[in-house]
Amino acid sequence: MILTSLFQRSGKARTAAALKDLQQLCIRLLSEAGTANSAAIASEVIAAYTKLAPESRFAFFEFLDTALAPDSDRVLRAAKAYAEKPDAERVLELQRVVEPPRQELLRRINRAPGGTSAIISMRRDLLKALREEPRMRAVDSDFCHLLGSWFNPGFLDLQQVDWGSPAALLEKIIDHEAVHAITDWTDLRRRLQPDRRCFAFFHPQLPGEPLIFVEVALVHAIPRSIEQLIRVAAAKEDAVPPRVAAFYSISNCEPGLRGVSLGNFLIKRVAQELKAEMPMLKRFCTLSPIPGLRAWLGGLDAASLPETWPAKLRNRLAGALKELRSRYGDDLSGIADAAGARSLPGDDQARLAQCAAVFLARVSVTPQGDPVARFHLDNGARLERVNIGADVSEKGLRESFGVMVNYLYDLTSIESNHERYVHGEVVSSRQIGGMT
Amino acid sequence: MILTSLFQRSGKARTAAALKDLQQLCIRLLSEAGTANSAAIASEVIAAYTKLAPESRFAFFEFLDTALAPDSDRVLRAAKAYAEKPDAERVLELQRVVEPPRQELLRRINRAPGGTSAIISMRRDLLKALREEPRMRAVDSDFCHLLGSWFNPGFLDLQQVDWGSPAALLEKIIDHEAVHAITDWTDLRRRLQPDRRCFAFFHPQLPGEPLIFVEVALVHAIPRSIEQLIRVAAAKEDAVPPRVAAFYSISNCEPGLRGVSLGNFLIKRVAQELKAEMPMLKRFCTLSPIPGLRAWLGGLDAASLPETWPAKLRNRLAGALKELRSRYGDDLSGIADAAGARSLPGDDQARLAQCAAVFLARVSVTPQGDPVARFHLDNGARLERVNIGADVSEKGLRESFGVMVNYLYDLTSIESNHERYVHGEVVSSRQIGGMT
Amino acid sequence: MILTSLFQRSGKARTAAALKDLQQLCIRLLSEAGTANSAAIASEVIAAYTKLAPESRFAFFEFLDTALAPDSDRVLRAAKAYAEKPDAERVLELQRVVEPPRQELLRRINRAPGGTSAIISMRRDLLKALREEPRMRAVDSDFCHLLGSWFNPGFLDLQQVDWGSPAALLEKIIDHEAVHAITDWTDLRRRLQPDRRCFAFFHPQLPGEPLIFVEVALVHAIPRSIEQLIRVAAAKEDAVPPRVAAFYSISNCEPGLRGVSLGNFLIKRVAQELKAEMPMLKRFCTLSPIPGLRAWLGGLDAASLPETWPAKLRNRLAGALKELRSRYGDDLSGIADAAGARSLPGDDQARLAQCAAVFLARVSVTPQGDPVARFHLDNGARLERVNIGADVSEKGLRESFGVMVNYLYDLTSIESNHERYVHGEVVSSRQIGGMT
Amino acid sequence: MILTSLFQRSGKARTAAALKDLQQLCIRLLSEAGTANSAAIASEVIAAYTKLAPESRFAFFEFLDTALAPDSDRVLRAAKAYAEKPDAERVLELQRVVEPPRQELLRRINRAPGGTSAIISMRRDLLKALREEPRMRAVDSDFCHLLGSWFNPGFLDLQQVDWGSPAALLEKIIDHEAVHAITDWTDLRRRLQPDRRCFAFFHPQLPGEPLIFVEVALVHAIPRSIEQLIRVAAAKEDAVPPRVAAFYSISNCEPGLRGVSLGNFLIKRVAQELKAEMPMLKRFCTLSPIPGLRAWLGGLDAASLPETWPAKLRNRLAGALKELRSRYGDDLSGIADAAGARSLPGDDQARLAQCAAVFLARVSVTPQGDPVARFHLDNGARLERVNIGADVSEKGLRESFGVMVNYLYDLTSIESNHERYVHGEVVSSRQIGGMT
Repeated sequence: MILTSLFQRSGKARTAAALKDLQQLCIRLLSEAGTANSAAIASEVIAAYTKLAPESRFAFFEFLDTALAPDSDRVLRAAKAYAEKPDAERVLELQRVVEPPRQELLRRINRAPGGTSAIISMRRDLLKALREEPRMRAVDSDFCHLLGSWFNPGFLDLQQVDWGSPAALLEKIIDHEAVHAITDWTDLRRRLQPDRRCFAFFHPQLPGEPLIFVEVALVHAIPRSIEQLIRVAAAKEDAVPPRVAAFYSISNCEPGLRGVSLGNFLIKRVAQELKAEMPMLKRFCTLSPIPGLRAWLGGLDAASLPETWPAKLRNRLAGALKELRSRYGDDLSGIADAAGARSLPGDDQARLAQCAAVFLARVSVTPQGDPVARFHLDNGARLERVNIGADVSEKGLRESFGVMVNYLYDLTSIESNHERYVHGEVVSSRQIGGMT
Repeated sequence: MILTSLFQRSGKARTAAALKDLQQLCIRLLSEAGTANSAAIASEVIAAYTKLAPESRFAFFEFLDTALAPDSDRVLRAAKAYAEKPDAERVLELQRVVEPPRQELLRRINRAPGGTSAIISMRRDLLKALREEPRMRAVDSDFCHLLGSWFNPGFLDLQQVDWGSPAALLEKIIDHEAVHAITDWTDLRRRLQPDRRCFAFFHPQLPGEPLIFVEVALVHAIPRSIEQLIRVAAAKEDAVPPRVAAFYSISNCEPGLRGVSLGNFLIKRVAQELKAEMPMLKRFCTLSPIPGLRAWLGGLDAASLPETWPAKLRNRLAGALKELRSRYGDDLSGIADAAGARSLPGDDQARLAQCAAVFLARVSVTPQGDPVARFHLDNGARLERVNIGADVSEKGLRESFGVMVNYLYDLTSIESNHERYVHGEVVSSRQIGGMT
Repeated sequence: MILTSLFQRSGKARTAAALKDLQQLCIRLLSEAGTANSAAIASEVIAAYTKLAPESRFAFFEFLDTALAPDSDRVLRAAKAYAEKPDAERVLELQRVVEPPRQELLRRINRAPGGTSAIISMRRDLLKALREEPRMRAVDSDFCHLLGSWFNPGFLDLQQVDWGSPAALLEKIIDHEAVHAITDWTDLRRRLQPDRRCFAFFHPQLPGEPLIFVEVALVHAIPRSIEQLIRVAAAKEDAVPPRVAAFYSISNCEPGLRGVSLGNFLIKRVAQELKAEMPMLKRFCTLSPIPGLRAWLGGLDAASLPETWPAKLRNRLAGALKELRSRYGDDLSGIADAAGARSLPGDDQARLAQCAAVFLARVSVTPQGDPVARFHLDNGARLERVNIGADVSEKGLRESFGVMVNYLYDLTSIESNHERYVHGEVVSSRQIGGMT
Repeated sequence: MILTSLFQRSGKARTAAALKDLQQLCIRLLSEAGTANSAAIASEVIAAYTKLAPESRFAFFEFLDTALAPDSDRVLRAAKAYAEKPDAERVLELQRVVEPPRQELLRRINRAPGGTSAIISMRRDLLKALREEPRMRAVDSDFCHLLGSWFNPGFLDLQQVDWGSPAALLEKIIDHEAVHAITDWTDLRRRLQPDRRCFAFFHPQLPGEPLIFVEVALVHAIPRSIEQLIRVAAAKEDAVPPRVAAFYSISNCEPGLRGVSLGNFLIKRVAQELKAEMPMLKRFCTLSPIPGLRAWLGGLDAASLPETWPAKLRNRLAGALKELRSRYGDDLSGIADAAGARSLPGDDQARLAQCAAVFLARVSVTPQGDPVARFHLDNGARLERVNIGADVSEKGLRESFGVMVNYLYDLTSIESNHERYVHGEVVSSRQIGGMT
């Protein structure tokens, strides 16, 4: 239904003609003749796509999917030949026939001025289409593959964003902050003062367009609550130099780059940059939300905890849950009220911390785990500390009863942490370990 | 033999250990664990490669060729599955198994600072190895494929090079000028005066490193000789604005990018740039060498001209050749002397022009044709005019009896010219047409 | 009294010692020995001044006034010698002895890094002192003389300020807007949209510090009200190109540069810049406040109008005033209410316009005239049109009953307009002429 | 005679008319009316001056000298008034009438685009005129006064010049090197390698135009010969960091700024810059020519040495001179030959060193002293060491028998050294002290 409204097959001749024109331009761009004039034709392709009615865009992606797919007969012949004799000649032929022609089409579109930007914009449309029509996955894979190669971190510029940055750029930071909303320019300014930092990745072809950015607080200890980091207050001159860099927000700006790894590189590059500037920094950590906590805990059935978990742990968890439900309701919604009012008793805080720790340390290795946890743990971070009452904003209470978590980035153990995570183990601090 | 000297299999344990270390680093970089720390490992790979003895580099490329090639069994299975049912799932699986793991290795190496530069430098070594060992073609194809994607013209910056450019850049221009050598800074300066232009392509990751550059003369008519363009003389103020932009030299600076198309894009971008700056420019042409002319003409056997050529043309050519040989020797070397002394009689000039015109108009469609001609014709240029005595430098006489040629770039017919060339036809001016 | 509070002669030895140190540093900087190390000593002078208590600063200026003044005996001798024989030698000697040593002191302070900024800051303090103690005028004259030479428009950079400018700069624009306050960033942004312009003068030694800026609206006709220029609304794409550039706000940012002409140069440079960019612009005008109008009109005694004015005009004015006072009170405050409510009858509008026109056209040639009028008329502008109800903001009603005025900058008649103004004549449009 | 040829009073009416036009433009620029349009009129003045025939320029300077001089009657009146009562009012009036109107003229010319450059160019002409006509000194003093204020070191940018600098800038360095000529780009490049530095002062109004530059060698000990510093040789990687920065050449680029102090500031700024970059630098010295040595020593009459010198010293000097003359001729020209051939016996080297030391330590306090010595000593440097055979180039032998000298810049004693020099005493090392 929604699909229909999004991509109505208009019967109008005009629409059909526009689509046909675009397809012919694409074929011309891919043709032998087109190679001599590709930048000019590519510009025409971009213009034609831009003018295309939204509902025709879906049809265009269908064209990419079917008309510009690999030829299965040739693929099979080439695969057989390679299996018989895997020499240079045959592997090259194989690669040639397996690569969908639409990849070369995208490479040629990229030759036009503004080509990269146009391709990202096509991908945005494609991602919408994909939601409705999963068979577009093959087309999307080609976009993703090329964008991943072009937005390789080796090609990205890391730039610090501060109060001397262009207003047009800062406005984008305000608009795209996805974790702890920036309400206005005063709020932004607080996050750009000397004890705060903001870094973004840029691509040379998209100047002034941040792709992803991270906000960092330079503090004295691993932070326990978000309020202390983002409240608007004059940064006071501090005699003691900071020892901890806390990443408290990381936001993507470009939906058309979904699936292209940027965040993990950004965190590590920024950590290196800060370490080089301030050798006195001893620890790099995050203060992160747990957006999946409340949904998981609210719906948790203590009877069906995985048998692979230690019985003792399961019992403890079931007990905690029972206690909490008796006081805060079956869906535990009362916890949010109490946490918001800062009136959660110490014992219940401990119970809540226990539940959150288990969620992070045991569920995050499964696809049902918290997405933020999965991102950082896959990145090689260590699960460090659970903080109760750390984010009492409406969103923080709604999503996670106000609980936040610190992940620790220890550059020397990133690689082994990541490997253990891939094999199903979450590396945690002793404190978390004791609870899980 | 040369191979041996280049890549001596040293029995030394040290060399073998260094190679093994590098291979293990590569495997680690490609491994699951490596993904969390790839930029750091990539830097180690680059350092290890740089320290590798030249003779071990060949062994490293062998490792890429064999250990990091596609798995033929999996390829065959995936190809059969795709042939049965060509859906998104299966085409993706097919692409996944066909892509050699060394491609992903290169993409990850590129994540390190200086990664792009390191990969180009590897490719330079690889091209040397390839001369000796053609089976490396598959490995080279992967390098070429990725570099082609990364050095897509859409990612390149066109910059004008002039007397305000850094000396370090100008020095590279002097060093890499491949067509008409720049003898010193005075010579260079003449080529950067207001009636001359120089443009180069740069990649954002390689600042200050021109990849390819072109030199242009702004003149009043299609030029007949190179001397008028490059001799050192004060550019005189000219009341009449120029009407012709003549490309008289195009040089690649980076051997590691061989096979990556840059020249064709550069010429067209520069033509657009100049047209935008000086709308009074009416024609864009070249004054180009014909480096293959003397070798072809000297060894030409009039009896074995292709039967597909008109008999009349063959007769005329045979007659001209006979006349010339009677006067200038079997190998025609006397022509170079006479042309150098500017004492070639008018009739013999016409005969030489006829031969050159045929060489360009008829042989250039075959792989035996002149490489410069094949470049411009494939680019969509038109064969415009043959110029006798146009380059009487030692090199000009040695390679082409001093003959040069103009190719004309008419932006409106590039596409059709190219297509006709691809189908075996050279588009020429009426003058050339009459001779061929 | 206020003076006492500002510059209390503290009995404290510490303060006296600090002052003495500074004076000795100044003498050392001026001494022969100091010339070899002046930049370093100058930095010490700046540091010592900065640390000086506010009340000691006055004493420091007294020191400049008395200890570093010209020596009257030597001045007289030199003047006599010059009168006897005005040759090169003697004029030089005369100049040498007449120049107060404090000028050379300031020039040497300027050699330190940050010297210019320090001198401007001293001048800010001096201007405060001057309010209390007019005899500091001689010292201030030296500051003003040197700053005028250093901030010569030939040394200033004109830069456009737009949404791509650094936020730190835009914040200064918001803070210093003196005519029509910018309430927030949204308000600012409206003034930086494509149909609005903002230009500022910068000095190379004070990067990022706008000295003065002007805001311009690109419109179709000479504007009648400020609201149409500054209200926050999306700028609509306009098919018709603008024909009029209206300067609607000009603000100084640096009080320490009072008396240094910047505004007149800025307006003319911006007009040239805009004309070069948009040759279709036909007229350059202002929409200006009349801050002195209400005070003048409210207190006007019709009986004592200058006898030099035509009797007819005096009668007309007296009549209008009487009418207005009968309806709006002796102090005319009712006009502000009526204008604010947009309920001023047409006849009274005409009367008010008549009064404003006379004020601008006749009183502006006297020191009692409106300061904004005197600025623009002295600049060579023409008095163009009086606009009733043009600024109904609280400030606009309070200062000028909401009346505003357009001045016209016609680059070809600036010089003669200025000259006529200097001789006591205001050049006006026919409309204004008819009323005055 | 030369004067006549330079400034021939042409009878031609055209010339006279051009001059008169220029004078009227100047008067208009200075007039009341001109203030409203001064930038535009200033541009006209510049254009009119540029078109003026060289011989009329002299007449223009005469006009500045006479027509735009202070009014002697008003000067006298103001001086008397000030002598009676030296208050703010009267000192201001005095300054007003003493300042020649030509100063204000220059300030207004400076308002035009390119004004500063035009004024410097006028000064170049004026300096030529001054050679012939000393009474122009008063005019020149006004130019010099204003240029000194505008080219205050606080307004100058210090920039490092290296191989990444624009070729157009490097060419100016080659052209203006005044001490040890740079023969070509290879020679220049050697002076820009990592163990050499070049710094220049720039003015914001004259971008790309170095005003003065200094060349520095980073070495291990105070250098004894120029050859080791400038010979073209690959800079070898050096494990030991440099401890000495040796200034071996300082050259002015702009003759129009003669008399404006730049060199002394440049040396000290560069020393600070280098010290900040390389804290291991322990000493800052020069290796300087002694251009006046041979002329002084060749013509020295031992009988007429100043009686104020110690008798013992006079005797020693007379003895050395006699010995040297006996072997190398009365004019000592044989020394140059022997020094050039590196065959000067050790004893004669000692005698020559003695003479040079005395010349530098005793004669430099008089106007007859060596100009380079006077520059550095006045700057606060210490006379450190005389080096025989230090510059055996043709110029070095011709001017100073190949002798060079080191001056030492010790930032802590600059001020006192300068003061002692001003009072007639040259501060020297113990070694020099022992000889003088």
